Amino acid sequence: MRQRYKPWADDFLLEHQDLIIQNPTEQKGRWQDLFASKQPLHLEVGTGKGQFLVGMAKQHPDINFIGMEVAKSVVVTAGEKALEAELDNLLLVHADANHLLDYFAQDEISTIYLNFSDPWPKNRHEKRRLTYTAFLKQYEHILQQEGELLFKTDNRGLFEYSLCSFSAFGMLLGEVNLDLHAEEDPLNVMTEYEEKFSAKGHPIYRCKAVFQR
Amino acid sequence: MRQRYKPWADDFLLEHQDLIIQNPTEQKGRWQDLFASKQPLHLEVGTGKGQFLVGMAKQHPDINFIGMEVAKSVVVTAGEKALEAELDNLLLVHADANHLLDYFAQDEISTIYLNFSDPWPKNRHEKRRLTYTAFLKQYEHILQQEGELLFKTDNRGLFEYSLCSFSAFGMLLGEVNLDLHAEEDPLNVMTEYEEKFSAKGHPIYRCKAVFQR
Repeated sequence: MRQRYKPWADDFLLEHQDLIIQNPTEQKGRWQDLFASKQPLHLEVGTGKGQFLVGMAKQHPDINFIGMEVAKSVVVTAGEKALEAELDNLLLVHADANHLLDYFAQDEISTIYLNFSDPWPKNRHEKRRLTYTAFLKQYEHILQQEGELLFKTDNRGLFEYSLCSFSAFGMLLGEVNLDLHAEEDPLNVMTEYEEKFSAKGHPIYRCKAVFQR
Repeated sequence: MRQRYKPWADDFLLEHQDLIIQNPTEQKGRWQDLFASKQPLHLEVGTGKGQFLVGMAKQHPDINFIGMEVAKSVVVTAGEKALEAELDNLLLVHADANHLLDYFAQDEISTIYLNFSDPWPKNRHEKRRLTYTAFLKQYEHILQQEGELLFKTDNRGLFEYSLCSFSAFGMLLGEVNLDLHAEEDPLNVMTEYEEKFSAKGHPIYRCKAVFQR
């Protein structure tokens, strides 16, 4: 994602510390306290500019959403969208997905979303893909027993890699769809990427994956 | 598969009615009686020339195998292989997969194999693909609760179609592999097609699918 230099980003983060959490380690095990209601907690890893998560939070007021994004100039854009939407069931986290176990307690999350994650196509960058085994281990830990991982991408290589990575980890896959927009689904909330690529006629790949325990 | 005219096929079938079952409807619910031992019953739909099933039966004497094949000139070749191997845990059935419910009772089968099934690539032939929803309904009925469908193909289009068909049916997928021969698996028994295509460097696609009940 293109990251513009935003000189006001630091000020924005300082001003909205209650919306964009900067110290997630301190919230481990007690995220629910930050929301208006205690209800299922869904996490998007790599929230980007936030269109998906804001759309989901509007559509599902009975779910609490956390969007994690490492890029400062991007998370502030998501923050602006979230502010505008005035939602009490959405928080952002400015942090790195490599340390999920520091931020979330075991079983704290009920659904994880990975949307249009960076494909890192070079073999030597495999470990950076958010569906690499080291990430799956983290997801397994923080997800509840029946928790689901929901994965969307327009990148065929990443999708194929991920199907195999999930399988090698012993996960079971469901709802595999190799052309998500072939049929209209009014409940599908699109990310910025998804809107752009599906408008160009690119197929969008989707699946859910569950851990076997 | 190329089917040569074999003038001796009828004689062979007549002579080996105990090995190649011609009246499967009469065996419904009591297949185990035809085997030396009562043990889990695995079914291959579309056995072809039988290399896979004979190999499996040798490797797994604690499982009873049934291979179903509709083409007469092909099933007799499988019959010859089976005779030569002298196995008491293998039977062939000369019949059509469209009528599985007439041949097998509910929960009678514990594993179903589909290997290199005809891809029927034209849209208007979708209903003939062995992973079409009407076939899945049959498999669900005859498979035990924990039963698995194991699927291998070299045809990418059929594989993708099948992943989606399984998913649309609500099945969960596991052990998805998009290049089965990238790593040596001494336990993988190859079909004739598999041997031929993987020797040419074609990737072999594999997955298992389970019904959610």
